[in-house]
Amino acid sequence: MNTNYAIGVDYGTESGRAVLVSLETGKEIVDHVTPYRHGVIDKILPNTRIPLEDEWALQHPQDYIEVLKNSIPHVLQKSGVDPEQVIGLGIDFTACTMLPIDAEGEPLSDHPELKNNPHSWVKLWKHHAAQDEANQLNEIAEQRGEKFLARYGGKISSEWMIAKIWQILNEAPDIYERTDRFVEATDWVTSQLTGNLIRNSCTAGYKSIWHKQDGYPTNEFFKALDPRLENLVATKLRGDVVPIGTKAGELTEAMAQATGLKAGIAVAVGNVDAHVSVPAMGVTEPGKLVMTMGTSICSLLLGDKEVEVEGMCGVVEDGIIPGLFGYEAGQPAVGDLFAWFVDNAVSSSVENDAIQEGLTLHQLLEKKAAAYRPGETGLLALDWWNGNRSVLVDTDLSGLMIGMSLKTKPEEIYRALLESTAFGTRKIVDAFTANGLAVNEIYVCGGLPHKNQLLMQIYADVTNRVIKIADSYQTPALGAAMFGALAAGSANGGFDSILEATSKMARIKDKVITPIPENVVVYESLYKEYSILHDYFGRGENDMMKRMRAIRFMAKQENAFV
Amino acid sequence: MNTNYAIGVDYGTESGRAVLVSLETGKEIVDHVTPYRHGVIDKILPNTRIPLEDEWALQHPQDYIEVLKNSIPHVLQKSGVDPEQVIGLGIDFTACTMLPIDAEGEPLSDHPELKNNPHSWVKLWKHHAAQDEANQLNEIAEQRGEKFLARYGGKISSEWMIAKIWQILNEAPDIYERTDRFVEATDWVTSQLTGNLIRNSCTAGYKSIWHKQDGYPTNEFFKALDPRLENLVATKLRGDVVPIGTKAGELTEAMAQATGLKAGIAVAVGNVDAHVSVPAMGVTEPGKLVMTMGTSICSLLLGDKEVEVEGMCGVVEDGIIPGLFGYEAGQPAVGDLFAWFVDNAVSSSVENDAIQEGLTLHQLLEKKAAAYRPGETGLLALDWWNGNRSVLVDTDLSGLMIGMSLKTKPEEIYRALLESTAFGTRKIVDAFTANGLAVNEIYVCGGLPHKNQLLMQIYADVTNRVIKIADSYQTPALGAAMFGALAAGSANGGFDSILEATSKMARIKDKVITPIPENVVVYESLYKEYSILHDYFGRGENDMMKRMRAIRFMAKQENAFV
Repeated sequence: MNTNYAIGVDYGTESGRAVLVSLETGKEIVDHVTPYRHGVIDKILPNTRIPLEDEWALQHPQDYIEVLKNSIPHVLQKSGVDPEQVIGLGIDFTACTMLPIDAEGEPLSDHPELKNNPHSWVKLWKHHAAQDEANQLNEIAEQRGEKFLARYGGKISSEWMIAKIWQILNEAPDIYERTDRFVEATDWVTSQLTGNLIRNSCTAGYKSIWHKQDGYPTNEFFKALDPRLENLVATKLRGDVVPIGTKAGELTEAMAQATGLKAGIAVAVGNVDAHVSVPAMGVTEPGKLVMTMGTSICSLLLGDKEVEVEGMCGVVEDGIIPGLFGYEAGQPAVGDLFAWFVDNAVSSSVENDAIQEGLTLHQLLEKKAAAYRPGETGLLALDWWNGNRSVLVDTDLSGLMIGMSLKTKPEEIYRALLESTAFGTRKIVDAFTANGLAVNEIYVCGGLPHKNQLLMQIYADVTNRVIKIADSYQTPALGAAMFGALAAGSANGGFDSILEATSKMARIKDKVITPIPENVVVYESLYKEYSILHDYFGRGENDMMKRMRAIRFMAKQENAFV
Repeated sequence: MNTNYAIGVDYGTESGRAVLVSLETGKEIVDHVTPYRHGVIDKILPNTRIPLEDEWALQHPQDYIEVLKNSIPHVLQKSGVDPEQVIGLGIDFTACTMLPIDAEGEPLSDHPELKNNPHSWVKLWKHHAAQDEANQLNEIAEQRGEKFLARYGGKISSEWMIAKIWQILNEAPDIYERTDRFVEATDWVTSQLTGNLIRNSCTAGYKSIWHKQDGYPTNEFFKALDPRLENLVATKLRGDVVPIGTKAGELTEAMAQATGLKAGIAVAVGNVDAHVSVPAMGVTEPGKLVMTMGTSICSLLLGDKEVEVEGMCGVVEDGIIPGLFGYEAGQPAVGDLFAWFVDNAVSSSVENDAIQEGLTLHQLLEKKAAAYRPGETGLLALDWWNGNRSVLVDTDLSGLMIGMSLKTKPEEIYRALLESTAFGTRKIVDAFTANGLAVNEIYVCGGLPHKNQLLMQIYADVTNRVIKIADSYQTPALGAAMFGALAAGSANGGFDSILEATSKMARIKDKVITPIPENVVVYESLYKEYSILHDYFGRGENDMMKRMRAIRFMAKQENAFV
């Protein structure tokens, strides 16, 4: 019997990557990256002189299609795999990355008469220009006692769907009017593959305030935001929401020709990068925290019930694995924090050492920091350089470090920063367990775990949990391919359940990271201290981070204090 | 009429400097430095293989004499001044720098049979091996309710005379036995110039717990420390204590020959570097805070009454200016803190910018930091990288910084560190004024004020006081020469009062630093925040700096947590 294959396409912020995966072993046979031709559009609209304001971040929808037409043929050709053997296709995406489309499903930015309006383009996840709308939305939701707030840690983000739609209505009512539907990019790309526009439960739940039982917020709520939004759900957000893993449809003849794949193969509904990594690591049941560790951390946990957990980014039924509740939490600066330190605060003598030893600065600092025992630096930090996402949900918080002496070395500060992010994770673990959601093991994927051994040991020691590491650098693409195979079903050479798919395809390294008992003891003491600072500065006893921010804001105004 | 001159000799940690000064103008005509042949002795005793323990710091007494014999002839020769015109000599010294001498005034380390015992040598001010004795001394003094403690901020330092004597008794009772007297190096060098051993009120008051009315602590107190110390005051500490500015005697024939000076000229009693700078800047009355700013800050203030001020290093009648009470306070890491930052925490890109602009790193950082308005960095620090001397008197405190974001730049951190030391000074100013001691103006000398304009502006803005800067790089030597002229008296071409001396010789730059009103407003807000952190971490509400230190100490022990 010939092996069957599936393709997963992972859409990142700067590029898309197609990976051809064996359904026997989960092995990634070949992968290929296509950088987006227009990248992140945050200065001027392409082919115009129309400038974008600060905080804007757009993309070109046809760049996504180019990834399919370029990278899929590449992996087919390079692998030598017969297209007959590729039985399914799945994609995962950044989110909320959204766009307005017309009744034919065409992006409004493809219309010559609309393309000069920035609001007709794809708004990337990190488009932050809808903060005013998000603030108002949260205020109104709180006043009305909307119970959906609790599912999102009390706050709806400016990055999410409703704030972005409202910004379009406020600033470009004509674009709003011309829009037939607002859709997640992941659903739109899937519609381009299959001809069917189907919304997936993951982005709908985590980004559009959708709930399996309660649906979207009520028309009354939307009316309270703006009377023109009253019927948003029935009109521009219309369309069924289906559990992830569902088959969205079959590959169209046109897309088959463009990609080299066989027409009619199964395509799964769209999905999100971090979330699709959960089954890719073999996690399909409660008790296992999956952390995607890169510039930031996205932490996901499965539960068999819906409970309120402080500071979650969202809890969604069918949001990660069909039939279970998916909980999401996050830390907004992890790799970014270490990069900030290396870019700004490491002396040239350390840099010279790194050159001499043939190491990167991160590698040298890791090596030097690893020579210290837990507690030996005398340092402790609050990891809030980019605010706190979970459990405090407060972007106005800032970083703190305590314990410096004239003998403090750069590698000690580096170690304290690594530890601070582990304490941040521990807070999330504690919030889950305090609400009856077990965290027995931790699974990690993303770039950081492969780069920094010390970091992984610290996380194991601080959380006192065994850590398992993805045996893949393309975990999201692997997960997307898995859902492609699930959409195909066994009749077509795929799988009928996610359990079946993961048992064959999920890949974890043999070597696990085990907590070191004496380190656990010390970190328990340090975590107590971290918690004191966390609550003192984060829960209102001393709001000085906010006051400093206010002073800073004033100081930036000319003559504010004259 | 020919101008008269005096010579000041400033004894530092690594070298001694002789300066020839005009009594007409205070102008420094010529200066010459003689490095100590044996430097700071902290590894092995000279010409032996006898190792010294950690925390030890000794000196060779004959190195001090060599400064006189080498540098004084140099300044005479180079200036072309007729020795007949040099009418007085004064010295200032580090303190407490002390040594045991025999009945003839010879250092015990000059005795061949004693010189292999490290305890026979000069103990330099930064000899820190008497910490156990200092701790016990403070405990016993507190138990007994000794009222002298209040004059020293509640704590006698391990650097000071009694702790050092007690260490000798504990570790080398034979040396203690052989000692005729323990003396400050400043008094010993003066005795070598004049043949008279006379103790000065400055070092006696600040370093030997002497008080003009109450004298030294009682025999009962010393007996409580150790029965063998009961009669210390009457025996090995015997000798009159006279106000600074007093004539110690006249230059001996032998020293005249060795130095090229005229025999019989007046020599002032010994003095201390920071303290002698007060009249050198023209400060002879209350209300003017004099700060010697270098690696650390020594702040001195005159008062016409003795009051208790929290966290003072000492208050001594006749300690600085005859007839007034001299108050001392301190900050243990200022230039040292900035140097730590530059050595450890500045990225190579900043270093490259400095090279390109032809600036030192400090200069470039000052330039970049000066582009920010007060409050604009969003950062705030507690300047406790080397503990807190005044007003908390706690060496176990450590540094803290708050407010960092992923956009924080090195120059912003640098600015926050400059500001933190200014807030530390403000705490001292507030402690003085809260106890009825006015601080109307600030006078600064030492290396830092000449190097960093921004720092001076920040100090003016944070304290809301005009700052005047010494017009001399050798302020202590100028002050020492001034006291030499005072010892000579007008009959011999000198002065009869310190007021007369300062009116002629004190030198301040014309340009003063004036507070900028809008900056004062912002810093008032930031100082409130600093004060909250200062009290929270420094006054026992959250002792985590001490707990972190304890964890660190444990962590350094092998297997402490197994």
